[in-house]
Amino acid sequence: MIELCLAKIASRSKYDATQPRLCQKQKEHEGKHAEFPFLVELAASHPRVAKKIERDSIMTTGASWKSADAGPNRILRWVMLLTDDELLKFGIKMQSLKPQVVAKLREKAAVYETCIEVAKKLTWLVYQMPDAPSLSPALGQYLEAYFGSVIPNSGTCMVCRAPLSFKLFAAAVRGKAAIETSHSNPRLHNPANVGFAHRECNIAQGGMSLEQFYKWIEEILTRVKTHQSS
Amino acid sequence: MIELCLAKIASRSKYDATQPRLCQKQKEHEGKHAEFPFLVELAASHPRVAKKIERDSIMTTGASWKSADAGPNRILRWVMLLTDDELLKFGIKMQSLKPQVVAKLREKAAVYETCIEVAKKLTWLVYQMPDAPSLSPALGQYLEAYFGSVIPNSGTCMVCRAPLSFKLFAAAVRGKAAIETSHSNPRLHNPANVGFAHRECNIAQGGMSLEQFYKWIEEILTRVKTHQSS
Repeated sequence: MIELCLAKIASRSKYDATQPRLCQKQKEHEGKHAEFPFLVELAASHPRVAKKIERDSIMTTGASWKSADAGPNRILRWVMLLTDDELLKFGIKMQSLKPQVVAKLREKAAVYETCIEVAKKLTWLVYQMPDAPSLSPALGQYLEAYFGSVIPNSGTCMVCRAPLSFKLFAAAVRGKAAIETSHSNPRLHNPANVGFAHRECNIAQGGMSLEQFYKWIEEILTRVKTHQSS
Repeated sequence: MIELCLAKIASRSKYDATQPRLCQKQKEHEGKHAEFPFLVELAASHPRVAKKIERDSIMTTGASWKSADAGPNRILRWVMLLTDDELLKFGIKMQSLKPQVVAKLREKAAVYETCIEVAKKLTWLVYQMPDAPSLSPALGQYLEAYFGSVIPNSGTCMVCRAPLSFKLFAAAVRGKAAIETSHSNPRLHNPANVGFAHRECNIAQGGMSLEQFYKWIEEILTRVKTHQSS
């Protein structure tokens, strides 16, 4: 493992008192502190992909979230670990939200350190996708210290296991990105559990774990074949 | 086949001049004309299911459709067969809609007679679902004249082929109905091609035909097994 700097980084977020943002550069690094130094190369060549990794790692998704402070539909995952009373101090009234919205938000909560590790894992995965840009030796060493060798061209969709091209990040169908961040168990946001998937694959998986999904489609095929031969 | 009355039924719809609504009772019937006489029994016992069959048979779905006349998100499927110029007379400006919305609406178009047959097919299917209400001999004869024997308790989800209980019509998860009207080829709205499916199954199928969907999940399982044994 790499020894990290972990200096506090001042930001304008009112949530900093709850959870400061920390420098993820190596200890005794030169230059400014940075929370996502492993995304700097990608931010230069493919800023939207870098932003997507940052966003999906640390923000909740998908709830019909209406709050001036939370931004459209999203809030920091670790903020969702606070109690209803603590959230009230930030102007977030959980009790005024529908129970299903609360459940969806709460189930996407994760501690800060885990979110940052998710970002590192997704970055490590990106560089292994077919057609991905190459990475510097220094960045390679950083990421490999966490997750092992970066094997170019080995990246697949987490769900369907077919090769997943980096180029698909730029593709969109009816305004929807073709690649989504995906979870083998949708209720766990951690590095072992995240990856990338085709949008259709992620949608098909729905609320099931991958294990459940594969079992489900196996049962479907069994029924279809029984039906055909009867 | 049953000889139908097919008398024109006056409605308040401004689209009647384009396509009159027709009586679907048997020729020389007694009493009032009716467009959905085969749904009368279901409308008495389970009005929401009857309304759903009527709506899904004749209305388009799902586009972000904004027009005072079209109602929220929906418009008569046969109206979508009219040209852009003809639609303009009804205050519908196709050219002001996004191309993907136009494509989605146009692809759901169907002639009036086919929509009515779809409603009959869905009604025939409903009575074959486990836990479905029973139907009168007269209604049974009417529906069987079109589609063959009504076999109680034989109904399955069109996609996963598992039994599909009528009771699921009353179930909803996070405000979404548990049963959806489904198409084996999503681009064809006709009686041979429609059925009912679990919401998750319909979502998983997405834009694929059922044939494509089964092929797709078979390939996934092949890759998953190759991956596990390597």
